Amino acid sequence: MSELITQLNWRYATKKFNPSKIVPTDAIERILEAIRLTATSSDLQPFEIFVVTNAEIREKIKAIGWNQEQITDCSHLIVFAAWDDITADRVNMVFNLTNQVRGQTSDDWENYRQQLLGIVAQRSQEENYQSAARQAYIGLGTALIAAAFERVDSTPMEGFDPVALDDILGLKAKHLRSVVILPLGYRADEGDWLVDLKKVRRARENFVTDIK
Amino acid sequence: MSELITQLNWRYATKKFNPSKIVPTDAIERILEAIRLTATSSDLQPFEIFVVTNAEIREKIKAIGWNQEQITDCSHLIVFAAWDDITADRVNMVFNLTNQVRGQTSDDWENYRQQLLGIVAQRSQEENYQSAARQAYIGLGTALIAAAFERVDSTPMEGFDPVALDDILGLKAKHLRSVVILPLGYRADEGDWLVDLKKVRRARENFVTDIK
Repeated sequence: MSELITQLNWRYATKKFNPSKIVPTDAIERILEAIRLTATSSDLQPFEIFVVTNAEIREKIKAIGWNQEQITDCSHLIVFAAWDDITADRVNMVFNLTNQVRGQTSDDWENYRQQLLGIVAQRSQEENYQSAARQAYIGLGTALIAAAFERVDSTPMEGFDPVALDDILGLKAKHLRSVVILPLGYRADEGDWLVDLKKVRRARENFVTDIK
Repeated sequence: MSELITQLNWRYATKKFNPSKIVPTDAIERILEAIRLTATSSDLQPFEIFVVTNAEIREKIKAIGWNQEQITDCSHLIVFAAWDDITADRVNMVFNLTNQVRGQTSDDWENYRQQLLGIVAQRSQEENYQSAARQAYIGLGTALIAAAFERVDSTPMEGFDPVALDDILGLKAKHLRSVVILPLGYRADEGDWLVDLKKVRRARENFVTDIK
């Protein structure tokens, strides 16, 4: 069994955090760095991360998040917010950054920029947003693993009102839409109904098909 | 720097595979196991994995995949296919499996089943599919990391005709829709334009916002 599989088996969706245990800054920064390094389609990274530690704001988020206590009891609340559209400006920002970092460009690369600009222009704003939201979930996959490697507990959550969360964080003005949130922290010593229950996954034969 | 960050820095979207280098079965199985263990919303795992090694089928997929050579040059082609709907039968399958594995149920758990059945029944089939597709991207995030830990190269790809791929693999009859594909294998010794170029990501200050 690999170290990664050990970490995936260790983690679970924490139902009760210990509110007095704070995740050290260096661990948080490593988790954020892992998310930042995550692959996305055409390297667009079409989402942003908000790290909410402010208690008052977390109370507001809890109120529009099914009153789930992890939102206020956790150490750091991570919000994944996707681009509300993939605009030409945003695509050009990424391609220009790439040229700047690599100190070069090429005809193939510039042709690909034009091709991508054409694709996103043809799609509706909603289609571009949905595409961006999917990329944020790649980052979520990374974040869950990164937290486990730090022995930090986490709870991926879709159970909140995204429009209300956008209002609380002022995301609309930034042309972002919240898609998923991830409390990070440390499990409470007691009161977590899930911690001792078996992880349940479909067996390989009901999940994987080999086409030989 | 953590081991995970080292792996994320090592990986890149491989542009040219060595077609004669095959990934060992035990490495493939560890990657699949990592995907299988991935967290998903309500533990539904609303997607399936297809591992295509058949050469003839991969030629067909290449033809509807922008003729990208990685599809046929790689060792194993992974296809992520999401549920085309989140039906009551599928939700019940998961909850029944959970009760069976844990040898117990509870009023809270059965209430949550009814709540979830209500949510998915209220959404359109397309909304349920979009939700399922997002979950598949969490699995993609895991797969990219799992491959890197095995020192297996990979190339996440959305550039294909999903309806045509569904036809090739007979996914419609299984009520699945292809969302993303992932060639796995080993980079070629030469001919990969990306391998020596710097990885480009936005700086932390353009990606993360701290709300204290």
